[in-house]
Order: sequence, then C-alpha cells, then structure tokens
Amino acid sequence: MFAEPETAAPAMTAVLTAVLTEGPLSRVGLARRLGLSQAAVTKAARPLIDLGYLQELAPTERTGPGAGRPASPLSIRADREFFLGVKITADELIGVVCDLSAQVRASAHRPLTHRDVEHVLTELTHLTNSLLDEGGYRARTRRLGLAISGDVDRGTGLVRYSPFLHWHDVALRELAEAATGLTVVVENDVKALTTAEHWFGEGVGAESFALVTVGTGIGCGLVVNGRLVSGSHGVAGEIGHIGVDVNGPACHCGGRGCVEAIAGADAIVERARRLSGHSELTFDGAVALARAGDQRVGAVFTQAGDAIGCAIAAVANLVGPARIVVSGEGLAAYDLFETPIRTGFERQAFGAAAACPLSIRPLPFEQWARGAATVGIQAFVAA
Amino acid sequence: MFAEPETAAPAMTAVLTAVLTEGPLSRVGLARRLGLSQAAVTKAARPLIDLGYLQELAPTERTGPGAGRPASPLSIRADREFFLGVKITADELIGVVCDLSAQVRASAHRPLTHRDVEHVLTELTHLTNSLLDEGGYRARTRRLGLAISGDVDRGTGLVRYSPFLHWHDVALRELAEAATGLTVVVENDVKALTTAEHWFGEGVGAESFALVTVGTGIGCGLVVNGRLVSGSHGVAGEIGHIGVDVNGPACHCGGRGCVEAIAGADAIVERARRLSGHSELTFDGAVALARAGDQRVGAVFTQAGDAIGCAIAAVANLVGPARIVVSGEGLAAYDLFETPIRTGFERQAFGAAAACPLSIRPLPFEQWARGAATVGIQAFVAA
Repeated sequence: MFAEPETAAPAMTAVLTAVLTEGPLSRVGLARRLGLSQAAVTKAARPLIDLGYLQELAPTERTGPGAGRPASPLSIRADREFFLGVKITADELIGVVCDLSAQVRASAHRPLTHRDVEHVLTELTHLTNSLLDEGGYRARTRRLGLAISGDVDRGTGLVRYSPFLHWHDVALRELAEAATGLTVVVENDVKALTTAEHWFGEGVGAESFALVTVGTGIGCGLVVNGRLVSGSHGVAGEIGHIGVDVNGPACHCGGRGCVEAIAGADAIVERARRLSGHSELTFDGAVALARAGDQRVGAVFTQAGDAIGCAIAAVANLVGPARIVVSGEGLAAYDLFETPIRTGFERQAFGAAAACPLSIRPLPFEQWARGAATVGIQAFVAA
Repeated sequence: MFAEPETAAPAMTAVLTAVLTEGPLSRVGLARRLGLSQAAVTKAARPLIDLGYLQELAPTERTGPGAGRPASPLSIRADREFFLGVKITADELIGVVCDLSAQVRASAHRPLTHRDVEHVLTELTHLTNSLLDEGGYRARTRRLGLAISGDVDRGTGLVRYSPFLHWHDVALRELAEAATGLTVVVENDVKALTTAEHWFGEGVGAESFALVTVGTGIGCGLVVNGRLVSGSHGVAGEIGHIGVDVNGPACHCGGRGCVEAIAGADAIVERARRLSGHSELTFDGAVALARAGDQRVGAVFTQAGDAIGCAIAAVANLVGPARIVVSGEGLAAYDLFETPIRTGFERQAFGAAAACPLSIRPLPFEQWARGAATVGIQAFVAA
C-alpha cells in the first residue's frame, strides 16, 4: 500500500502511546504489539523512565513453559504531568485539569457575557489561572487544549468559523498562548471528544470507531484504519446532514429531511410547540410533556430517535466501525431516545453491520473539556 | 497514533508501489515521497532493476539552482510480467490479461450454463488457458485474480456467500489454484474495482477515495486514510442500504427506503412495469421508454438517480473522499441518471463536501476483470 513508511511514529512515541492507552504492558508485550525488537523497546523506554513518565511495576510471576525471568510491566506515572482542557461554548467556559491518564482532577465553569474574542480570552485566562493555582498544578502543567464547535484547523490553531460564537478566522492558538503562557492546541469539539474515546474510552485498540453526539447539532467523529477521519474537503462526520427522509422538512443547510432538521434540539422544540400548542415550550418542557405521557410530543422524540438510528446505520453500513458511542447533551433525555435510536439502527443496519455494538449514554458537559485536555495529551505524546 | 510501525511496507515494496502507481519518478523524488534516505531508495531499487521490473529512463536535464548531476527517473517495465483477471458472474466469465501497469492486453468471455463450482472451475481453466496460449503470455504469467460479488474473505480466499451464484463457503482460491496451476487471489468485485481505481485510475495518490457502482445492486468501495475500508464486522461500503426515504418502499434487507429498493435495477423495472402497464418490460425496455419521452417511466429514473445522489452525499458528508467515481453497468443509461444523481448530491452535500468531484461514467464490463487482475498485481507487489 501507499502507507507512509516514515509517519510510523518513532519508537519512543509508540511505546508511550501504547502504555498510555493500553498499559500496563511488559517490554515483551510491547515489542510484540509494536513489531519492534525487545532491545528497541528497552532503549525507547529508558529515557521515558528517567524522565518520570513511565515506571516499572513489581515483577509478575511467569509460570508457563519457557518462562524466563519475571517481567516488570511498564505503567504510566499519571501525576508526572497535568493538562488543562477547556470547552468554549456560546455562554460559558468549562475547564478541567487532567492527569497524563486523562483522569479529571479538577473542574470549573466560568460564564461568558459576550462572545467577542477579547472577552473570551480574558475569561479563559482567569479560568486557567484559578484551576492551576487552586490545586497546585501549575508547576507540572505546560499544555492547554481548547475544544470549540465549528470549522477548526488543528494544524494552525485557526478557528475558521464558529457558528455559535459568530467567529471567523480567529487565530485562537496564538492568542491563547499569548494570554495564558501555555502551549495551546485547538480542535473541533466533536473530534476532541472522539480522541478521548479513542485513546482512553470505548475506542481503545479499535481500528475503527465512531462517536455520535446529539444536541443542538448532531455530529460524528470517525476513526477509520486507526486514524481520525478529517475529510479531503474539510468536511467529515457530518452525520446531521444525511438525508433520511426525501419528503421531510427543509434543513438550514439547503438539504431535505436531514437528521438535524428532524432530530436537532431546535427542530424538536419547534415541532413540539406546534403539536402541543405551547408556543413558549422549551426543550426541557418538551421532554417533561413526553415523559408525562403526551403522545404527540412523545412521537416527536420517537421520530427524532428513529432518524438518528437510521443515520447511525448509514455509518455502520459504509465504514463498519468496531463500535459506536452515542452521547451528547441531548441524551439527558435518553430515556426518550434510546429505544427509537435502536429501532431505526436495527432496521437500516445491513446484515452483519447490525452486530456493531451501540453504547447510548448521556454525556456530562465536563467530558467535552476532558476531550480538549486529551488533545493536549496527544500533542505532548507526539512531540 | 497507534499506527502499526511494522506494517509500513519494506522499502522495496514501497519503491515498486510508488513507481507503479505514480511513476516515472527519480530516486530523489522517491526518497522525498517515501520519507526514505536516497541511499535506501537506491539500495531498494537495485534488485528491482536487476530482476527487470524497473528500468532507468534517459537522464532529464536539471537546470535549477543547486542542480546536481542529471536524474534518471525510474519507470516500470510493464511487459516484464502479466496478470490474469477474471470476473465471475451468474452467467459468464469475463477474463483479461493485463501487464504490470494494469493495461489490458487481451480479453475473452465464456458463458456459464450452470452455477455449480465444478462447472465454473472447468470453464475458468478453459478461459485462462486460451488467454495465456493465444497471446503467448504463459511464460510470463504466474498470477490470477478472481472478482466475485458477495461476501469474500480475501485473506483465506474463501467465498463465504455469493447471492448470484448461490455459493456458500467455497474455498475458491484453493480450488482455482489446483485447477489452473496459477497463484490465485480472490476479492469482492467492488473492492477489486476500487483497488484498480486507487492504484491506476482516478484514485491515484488520494488519501481517501470512493467508487460507487450502479447496477443490479448498488455498491461502494472506500479508501480512507490510504487504505481500503473493510469493516470490523465484515460489512463496509453498503451504500445500497442507506435509508433515504423513511416512508419509502420496503427493501429485501428488511430496511425501508433503501437506495437499492428505489434505484436497483429490479426496483426500477418493477416500478416502470407498474406505471407503464407493460408487465413484461425489461430494464432496457424501461430505458427505451424513458428516452422516448415517457414521463412516468422517466420519473422512475429521476427518483432513482436522486436517491443515489443523496446516498453519495452521505459518503461525502461522513468521510469526505478526495473524489468519487460513479460507474457500473446500470450507467449504460447514464443519460437518464447523471442529472438527478448530481441534483440529489448537491442538495444533500453539506457545505464544502459539495466540492468533492463526482465522475459519472459507464463501466465496460471488462473493467471488472481488470479490477481482478489489479488485485493480483497488488498481491505480487506486496509479496
């Protein structure tokens, strides 16, 4: 194949990544897994142990035939370094401190009163300072990951377009580095969350994996052939604009019967208002009516879940991920969504694609910030 | 990333692949492209030149600043070795001889009167013998690629299930090797065709690429992150079972409003019969009626094309291929399909995904056999 022989990460990165995501692992196990000689693993691990990122656990007994001297598995020293992660939304910043294993050690919120870049940067600096100082993390924290919805160029740290913040071409990495003094990486929020699941969640070890987020928008992060899919034309994972009903409602994107036009939070609210006659109904109000047994409003959620399930089946039919996680703030109402999502998925999944496990679960908002921190961890490991 | 450091092809395979698919290339160009030292390229190229697979072209002038001695680009000696490819359908075998550059040198058809394995193997042997003997290719041909629709395990050469032939668990590679004396590789036909486009067609050099085939079934081959997508559960590229109309016709797969239930050849014929009142109408008859201006039958093709375009947009929205080729025997009627395919695609492609170029073109049946030969070339290069 064309695969790039030289983008194979050097041995140190490969060893650190494997122990981080799948450890503890013995040197023998690492050598087998990475296709390296045991000597190469030992050589790569040495500086990581010296720098305090890896440690040797107590030797485990080996009793099988041909057992040599006992193996001392390598594991991560999670508190060797900490990583900040911040999710930027239209009305607040959510920040976390994670350790090297992506465990959340501290978290904090900070409201945004404006959406202009200067205000966001000021609040971001307050948030990161308080997180670093209150927990005593400053001395061991050098990196900050930022997650934001919209069109983000991770390579340059440029936010090309963020619809919720009304930002165009904001050089966020540069600005945030100047403001905080930290090394910053910026990523699309769904991709950041997908990275967290791929490295530290249900996607660990999977060659292919999908994460679907349900909320105001409906998004998808895809890992195929071991790598995040980014799209040759800057678009990928736009599951929200798969057309599942050719005679369905018009979507803001110009499409017809898009999943988002049926199952996005705004579409649900609008339809629930129309059917219930409550013109001031909120999303939470619609959830409450459906839970209380209102059949018309209940049907809105059923139809929405079916559309989501149908689009998830399209993902399974096309790329066949090992597993799919469905999450997002919309799944606070997952009691209303889960059954129709599974029904739509099972109807449209083709043959063995129906065997793809679906994990449907709510997503604490803090997890978005953890996703941002994970992107920082990934950048650190690659460096 | 987790990417497997040791599946990076060794230098000889990498050099041969690059020259084969993107050559002629100078050693300097190869080194840059493959991330290898120039010495490593020279070392890898030497045995390939000695064995007659590569040749040095006449030096080209280099006149830029810092120009060293003139570079002698390496190119493929296409007639060094030949490869047989055979597509197995329900009623005939289509065979070709290709050279190392996948150019078709000879072709032949052979009808099948039965679908049992023994008959197919007998006819396959006759076909390969006549192709090899008539053109004098035998001495330089060692490999045969077989393409067949259905569930095929390329690794073991097992045809798990072929619906058109009614085959279950046929060890085709083993049987065909015994019958022909050639080294055989067996692949799903859509994947074989995708490989041909990826290595020798419009997909050359693309990190991601899709091929959509329109005919009795509607299939899709996907290359993402540089490799063919195979699906963790054995299913991938099943574009025909994406649901595009939740209130649409039931599909044989159990789904509703699947693309194939709207745009597969059988679905089109059935619908055209019902609307025209001609209960014996064939696919070609439906095409003729539509071309003659029958608006009801014309609308069947329009709706079918729209459904295909909508599903192709789902591919673009999810994985963002660099380009998409739409082909297949159904596109013999591409005058009826092209406009509605583009209309459906443009409506449902999200934002910049609409920039993905669509090549819509008929597919000579022989190209399926060339795809099979290409899989043989690929197996040779990897070996």
